[in-house]
Amino acid sequence: MDLDFGKLDGLIPAVIQDAASGRVLMTGFMNEEAFRMSVETGFATFYSRSRKKLWLKGETSGHRLAVKEIRTDCDADTVLVMVEPIGPGVCHEGYESCFFRKLENGEWKTADERVYDPAAVYGGKA
Amino acid sequence: MDLDFGKLDGLIPAVIQDAASGRVLMTGFMNEEAFRMSVETGFATFYSRSRKKLWLKGETSGHRLAVKEIRTDCDADTVLVMVEPIGPGVCHEGYESCFFRKLENGEWKTADERVYDPAAVYGGKA
Repeated sequence: MDLDFGKLDGLIPAVIQDAASGRVLMTGFMNEEAFRMSVETGFATFYSRSRKKLWLKGETSGHRLAVKEIRTDCDADTVLVMVEPIGPGVCHEGYESCFFRKLENGEWKTADERVYDPAAVYGGKA
Repeated sequence: MDLDFGKLDGLIPAVIQDAASGRVLMTGFMNEEAFRMSVETGFATFYSRSRKKLWLKGETSGHRLAVKEIRTDCDADTVLVMVEPIGPGVCHEGYESCFFRKLENGEWKTADERVYDPAAVYGGKA
């Protein structure tokens, strides 16, 4: 069975979950090469839609995602990547998870605490 | 802050996670109306890319997803929906989670047990 990259212009969504805590940390997109790199190197690699190139998560911050297990769904058009995150948080805004905002009465409210200072990690690049 | 439906032809990926167990159950896409319906009705509603229409998860099977919490990520272009699943499994193939296949030595292997008989639930429609 092959992954189905045909539904979304060569991309599939990749859900990144902390293998230990079960927390969903981020989502990204992978093209076929990013998926192969993730498998071969053992570190989650995405395709950046804005930069239009492969993106090794953590290449700037050092906060890589060590791949522990990869699953796919019934349609083989999405992957779930269980990882061990290296570093305090995956979000470039300084949070453990990119999903740090919660819907409350129709408003998105920050629901988590920052776990690191993004300016110290990314400099002016965050 | 508004969700960004502009990056993917009016759609955003929606990751569905069991609020109690933390298991990622499925992913789907929502357009703005599906998102609003999910919030207003309290049951996860998607936009079916193949059928090109709104899709209330569980409309055929009864296996609805009761929304407990909705989060969005730093770019506001993905939602994480924590749910209480109604019924034994969300996957139309009879599994608790659509992510029942695991990559092992380059092959996708079924890693979970079926939790219900899809033929009994979906008839010929699965």
